[in-house]
Amino acid sequence: MRATFIHGAGDIRVADAPDPVIVHPTDAVVRVVRACVCGSDLHPYHAMPPAPGGRSIGHEFIGVVEAVGSEVRTLSVGDFVIAPFAVSCGTCEFCRAGLQTSCSNGGFWSDARVGTAGGQAQAVRVPLADGTLVVAPGVDESTDESLLASLLTLSDVYGTGWHAAVRGQVAPGSTVTVIGDGAVGLMAVLSAQLLGAEQIVLMGRHRARTDLGVEFGATAVVAERGDEGIAAVRDLTGGGSQIVLEAVGHYPAYEQAIGIVRPGGVISRVGVPQYDQAPVGFGTLFGPNITLTGGPAPVRAYLETLLPGVLDGTVNPGRVFDRTFDLEDIPAAYAAMDAREVLKAMIRP
Amino acid sequence: MRATFIHGAGDIRVADAPDPVIVHPTDAVVRVVRACVCGSDLHPYHAMPPAPGGRSIGHEFIGVVEAVGSEVRTLSVGDFVIAPFAVSCGTCEFCRAGLQTSCSNGGFWSDARVGTAGGQAQAVRVPLADGTLVVAPGVDESTDESLLASLLTLSDVYGTGWHAAVRGQVAPGSTVTVIGDGAVGLMAVLSAQLLGAEQIVLMGRHRARTDLGVEFGATAVVAERGDEGIAAVRDLTGGGSQIVLEAVGHYPAYEQAIGIVRPGGVISRVGVPQYDQAPVGFGTLFGPNITLTGGPAPVRAYLETLLPGVLDGTVNPGRVFDRTFDLEDIPAAYAAMDAREVLKAMIRP
Repeated sequence: MRATFIHGAGDIRVADAPDPVIVHPTDAVVRVVRACVCGSDLHPYHAMPPAPGGRSIGHEFIGVVEAVGSEVRTLSVGDFVIAPFAVSCGTCEFCRAGLQTSCSNGGFWSDARVGTAGGQAQAVRVPLADGTLVVAPGVDESTDESLLASLLTLSDVYGTGWHAAVRGQVAPGSTVTVIGDGAVGLMAVLSAQLLGAEQIVLMGRHRARTDLGVEFGATAVVAERGDEGIAAVRDLTGGGSQIVLEAVGHYPAYEQAIGIVRPGGVISRVGVPQYDQAPVGFGTLFGPNITLTGGPAPVRAYLETLLPGVLDGTVNPGRVFDRTFDLEDIPAAYAAMDAREVLKAMIRP
Repeated sequence: MRATFIHGAGDIRVADAPDPVIVHPTDAVVRVVRACVCGSDLHPYHAMPPAPGGRSIGHEFIGVVEAVGSEVRTLSVGDFVIAPFAVSCGTCEFCRAGLQTSCSNGGFWSDARVGTAGGQAQAVRVPLADGTLVVAPGVDESTDESLLASLLTLSDVYGTGWHAAVRGQVAPGSTVTVIGDGAVGLMAVLSAQLLGAEQIVLMGRHRARTDLGVEFGATAVVAERGDEGIAAVRDLTGGGSQIVLEAVGHYPAYEQAIGIVRPGGVISRVGVPQYDQAPVGFGTLFGPNITLTGGPAPVRAYLETLLPGVLDGTVNPGRVFDRTFDLEDIPAAYAAMDAREVLKAMIRP
């Protein structure tokens, strides 16, 4: 089969790879119908040191089950499935608590711990298939393209935006500010709207994206950054936002969150932090009793909640996909996302 | 009157000061019956640069109302009152939300913003008296010494320990670890016990204090620090504590909290951080979805909840006081607390 490998910063290649096969009795093999490129894939695309032989990549895909191991109970060959971005057993303490990203037995795609490859490929071996995969009933390869797109967001960005909002304690009437107009930021807007937020300020400066954010429920857009952006949000929210959803991961976004959050408020981060140290002292988090929360979304935990609205078409998160590339053209997909010419690139294997 | 001033690190002096008088119509003047020294007073005692003329100090006291301004509605001369460690109006958005430490009109004792002096004195002018003070019905100066002691903990340490536990989401059955065996740490133990925690690990190495912690509800004591302490707590809690209450404020306590918290757990800080930067990235907070919360306790918000148990004697938080000093001897009280000879020093003006 053909699969994607990253060989270092800026160096994405498609190459031949062995067809995946069942290794453990709890495995499934999934033929990928749609995959995509994540904003978080751009972090290694910017900064990864050269890796001889390359590293398999991709953690968002939907597809058709082609084979199952002897111990797989909930899946059958031919099922159309959604693969969350984390592999999870479904039975350990953390999975039962809805924190599948901390699964005692799982891990991440293209991660040595679970020994599987990435999803930007024609097929993937899925470990712990019963715990990891979720069947999308009534869906097949001929399903409408816009529904496939929305199902694909359930692999990561929709669940991640939802996690931001849930961890941020968004509730009916909330005032929410979302930092970042990437796909996750827009999904955070959509999620805040679904959870009943009354005011949703979207911080972003890419007009096409923020326009989509307004369609998803943003009530105001702040294009300014830094002190100007902070002043604008504080003005719009009457002194600061009770809830801040940080969907970028770069340090200036953390500073922005600190600048706009209201005393007693919550900063919920889902952008993977590209920094380690940050201010947490009296003048930032402690004095005003700010809560800092968030992390990698346990997307699997939210699928039962989010899938019905996607299937019945009441929510259309798939609108974040604005261009489709064939797998062989995936280097161009990375380049286009990196150049911000494309919001989110869908990949057709 | 006589009042306490800090002139720099290690330099506590008692001096004459003008008798406080009503300045604003919302003021009260309170004659102090008991005050005390806080663990957080030791921070300037360690590190404050020399201050010519000295700075008034003290933020915990109980006493008798001696005068009220013309607009004071809820207090009368002769009332016995508890003064929380923050001055608060009771009417602004933050006070109504139970976050009196962020009051739009208030501030802290000996803080220029509210223009009042500290509580380690014979009397104090209390701004925004209706919002700030709480009457302890049936109490007067002849009340039993142990009840006065417990009432005094409502100025700060009991409410602060309670805040740690509330922000940490302690609930029936919780596993909780408390870092620090100072008065606030012990109050966090007591609060966790009252809120129904099943396992309460107390990290501290002062036997007399941890013994009191066990009486307050700790189910285990870990005297080790650093990696050894982390290993011991992880062992006791089967892989990490769901809730960590950090009642110290020094950086190693933050590191300890990170080391012992369970994935998906909460670190609730009430020790005033003596550091600014700390790790918050993928390897610490983000990856395991840890929530970092806490801050200065809105003690005022908890008084209605905590006062009845103190008045009827079902809880005895005043046991944290282990020595009483006359006001003139307060330099010795600071020195004894600093040397850890005294857990918490009560001051009799």
